[in-house]
Amino acid sequence: MNLTVKDIAAKLGVEFEGDGDALITSAAPIDSAGDGQISFLSNPTYKKFLETTKATALVVSPKTPIGNWSAIISDNPYLIFSKIVDLLYPPTYADNWTIHPTAVISNSASIADRVEIGPQVVIEDEAQIGSGTVIKAGCFIGKGSSIGKHCRIAPNVSIMHHCQLGNDIIIHAGVVIGSDGFGFAPTAPGEQFEKIRQVGGVEIGDDVEIGANVTIDRGAIGPTVIGSGVKIDNLVQIAHNVRIGDNSIIVAQVGIAGSSIIGRGVMLGGQVAVAGHIKIGDLAQLAAKSGASKTLEGGKVYYGIPAKPIMESRRIEAALRNLPQLMKRVKELEQKK
Amino acid sequence: MNLTVKDIAAKLGVEFEGDGDALITSAAPIDSAGDGQISFLSNPTYKKFLETTKATALVVSPKTPIGNWSAIISDNPYLIFSKIVDLLYPPTYADNWTIHPTAVISNSASIADRVEIGPQVVIEDEAQIGSGTVIKAGCFIGKGSSIGKHCRIAPNVSIMHHCQLGNDIIIHAGVVIGSDGFGFAPTAPGEQFEKIRQVGGVEIGDDVEIGANVTIDRGAIGPTVIGSGVKIDNLVQIAHNVRIGDNSIIVAQVGIAGSSIIGRGVMLGGQVAVAGHIKIGDLAQLAAKSGASKTLEGGKVYYGIPAKPIMESRRIEAALRNLPQLMKRVKELEQKK
Amino acid sequence: MNLTVKDIAAKLGVEFEGDGDALITSAAPIDSAGDGQISFLSNPTYKKFLETTKATALVVSPKTPIGNWSAIISDNPYLIFSKIVDLLYPPTYADNWTIHPTAVISNSASIADRVEIGPQVVIEDEAQIGSGTVIKAGCFIGKGSSIGKHCRIAPNVSIMHHCQLGNDIIIHAGVVIGSDGFGFAPTAPGEQFEKIRQVGGVEIGDDVEIGANVTIDRGAIGPTVIGSGVKIDNLVQIAHNVRIGDNSIIVAQVGIAGSSIIGRGVMLGGQVAVAGHIKIGDLAQLAAKSGASKTLEGGKVYYGIPAKPIMESRRIEAALRNLPQLMKRVKELEQKK
Repeated sequence: MNLTVKDIAAKLGVEFEGDGDALITSAAPIDSAGDGQISFLSNPTYKKFLETTKATALVVSPKTPIGNWSAIISDNPYLIFSKIVDLLYPPTYADNWTIHPTAVISNSASIADRVEIGPQVVIEDEAQIGSGTVIKAGCFIGKGSSIGKHCRIAPNVSIMHHCQLGNDIIIHAGVVIGSDGFGFAPTAPGEQFEKIRQVGGVEIGDDVEIGANVTIDRGAIGPTVIGSGVKIDNLVQIAHNVRIGDNSIIVAQVGIAGSSIIGRGVMLGGQVAVAGHIKIGDLAQLAAKSGASKTLEGGKVYYGIPAKPIMESRRIEAALRNLPQLMKRVKELEQKK
Repeated sequence: MNLTVKDIAAKLGVEFEGDGDALITSAAPIDSAGDGQISFLSNPTYKKFLETTKATALVVSPKTPIGNWSAIISDNPYLIFSKIVDLLYPPTYADNWTIHPTAVISNSASIADRVEIGPQVVIEDEAQIGSGTVIKAGCFIGKGSSIGKHCRIAPNVSIMHHCQLGNDIIIHAGVVIGSDGFGFAPTAPGEQFEKIRQVGGVEIGDDVEIGANVTIDRGAIGPTVIGSGVKIDNLVQIAHNVRIGDNSIIVAQVGIAGSSIIGRGVMLGGQVAVAGHIKIGDLAQLAAKSGASKTLEGGKVYYGIPAKPIMESRRIEAALRNLPQLMKRVKELEQKK
Repeated sequence: MNLTVKDIAAKLGVEFEGDGDALITSAAPIDSAGDGQISFLSNPTYKKFLETTKATALVVSPKTPIGNWSAIISDNPYLIFSKIVDLLYPPTYADNWTIHPTAVISNSASIADRVEIGPQVVIEDEAQIGSGTVIKAGCFIGKGSSIGKHCRIAPNVSIMHHCQLGNDIIIHAGVVIGSDGFGFAPTAPGEQFEKIRQVGGVEIGDDVEIGANVTIDRGAIGPTVIGSGVKIDNLVQIAHNVRIGDNSIIVAQVGIAGSSIIGRGVMLGGQVAVAGHIKIGDLAQLAAKSGASKTLEGGKVYYGIPAKPIMESRRIEAALRNLPQLMKRVKELEQKK
């Protein structure tokens, strides 16, 4: 799809400066964009490219000095850029409401009208699939599980039995939902553990996105719960009976241990670990690689192993760099005695 | 299945107190259980719910003061609770000994009687599947691999060629067993590495459970070995030629590097890393997020990066919190001179 | 295949010492090798086995004192051993150029002659598969993606739409390539995030190996790029718009955040994290569990969270062990005043 700068601004209800008739045919990163391409500036790291970019147009904030390109102006350039990408590119999933003949679907499953079910998909007894949902090749939907409307499920996803998923969910390839929680009762030191049956399910709200090869275990007895608007990056582990509040962001390779409660609007950086049976308060943020070992109050930023308020961790980190020298200074003080 | 408290106690050979005729219909967590439900108390964090729980019955230890509910009494409440869940809920896998017509099974594979093989499963030449084993949709069993009796293999699992699995194994969805070990010979700095053929297999004992999306590489020459009774959580990485002793517990997102030897009854917490070519002694425990960089003696608890005896790490951690202040104190001492 | 020590040395153009007529039938680790088996010595940890090994032959460096076995001599014993394994063992993938009737292949896909396409494979519109490539059971190749010549793709791999893969690539089971990058624009604190469309692809060079259950996200606008000769271990996460230079080694469970640039010949140890929008210079090495939080110069070895030159981290680590004692010494100094 080709659009002029003027047309784009009009469609999105935002201002523009410069040549409104410039034609935009695709999007590109600011440092590699060329003729006919649009980019954006949001991360200040890339400010240096404002003068050298060969982009035809940029989405920038009102404070950005205009350069040698047409400007589309917004307080949230990343968001507006995203909407422009939506205008320029065809949708990832076409409306292709068909059920592939190789899919194996139980007679007792309930499949809405207008769904796409790809080759080799398996849907077990009493499962439910909502209208407008796409399930790509090789997925498994277990007995009694339900998937809402307008969901997009990529290939080779396994959703085990009795999991309840809401509407407008995106699940990337290789995800496993509803595997058994890791529950074992010890018998004696070094001896065989006894498996604890895991009979809880998984409940997932609306507008959730789940990254590739994520694992979300079913609850031991009550359910594991993922709130609406939660975004989960690749290779995250969510253990049994975890509860994640609405609109939280879980970056790649995070692990959340059993029965912990993550609040609303929380942000967990990459490779963070959250211990079992603790709470992370609403709007708390944990920097990458942190380890939360106890309940953390909401609204603050934490860092470190164990996770501490970030300023405290940063002070310790700075002091650490001087620690070998401090050792020497104490030795000198001792010798001066 | 509905059972009275009295019946449950009798079936499991344990004592009860309170109303033996109370009817139990399902299990629930202590803080959300209601009428007709049974729960348990094992983790002291939940002691506070003993007075407020609306559960009809609880499994508790002999020392727990009895409250407003019927009590089933055991020294191991978690284990007894697990057995009660087994009584109340139907089995996850029904006895459904059928081979789905869409499964692709080599003529030279050896399939026992009484197996369940789901849709789209692929079983290659000379593979063997034992009696009572269930293989769900989309699994791949490579050439010459064997799977014992009474195993439960969830959807989309890939077991590569020439891997030997014992009996009573549970494998969750998306697991990969027998992928090539990560073995490359350097040629010159910055130049192409040469792949080292990985011709060892994987040997897995009995009663092992392997979590979703776990990866276990085949040995370079000898096998990678997982002992009997080992329980592995989701997203764990086990490299080539690792050996894990019986009844060890490997929590989610642990990585064990090549040729390391993990003893019997070891416990590795979440996101632990174990370096290559080292040993972790029997019954050792590593707290979450630790990194073992050298051989560690058995029977002790370790923590930290690098992993140290936990009391030593805790002392350092406490001292670290005071480090910025220590810096100031040393400065003051110096100025007083 | 059975070969004499003399034959092996001749085929590989290297020297031997001892009994050239000794027959070699298989390979084994130095500590378990027996009659008719060959092993090698490369890692000095295993030097102790030189006297006790029961191997018939060993590949050793010219400096190694010859023992009670035939010696094949090379400056790079690991590499030569690898070539011997290639001689002794049949190839993992046989030449079996067939397309399984259960594969679902779009009419508009372009499939070269001499390919193997396994059962249940799905290949979408306009995808291209090069000659000599093997795609095992249950793989998904999305619309417009291309795979070069002589690639080996293990079962249950998902390659999403519009990804471009070179020649001689090995992809292990469960890998996901081309899932959406993790891009969301915030609206207000605690409120719903807006998904940013991810329309870039993934470009992978030649001679790349990708471990089991790895995830490589597609770029937001430009592509995510993996250079030629890159070797990626299991469960690694590579975010959108990352670029990895040729011949770099990425060990298991590493996470690389969005838009970061990894140089040529870099080595990232297990569980390393690289923050977003930074550069790791050519030939840099990061020890296991390190976290790179800012751009790091090439040619150096780094360690720690945050990653520092390894000698600096080691000095801090050594000082840390003495920190509790240092606290006491400062207290004593203060009391002496």
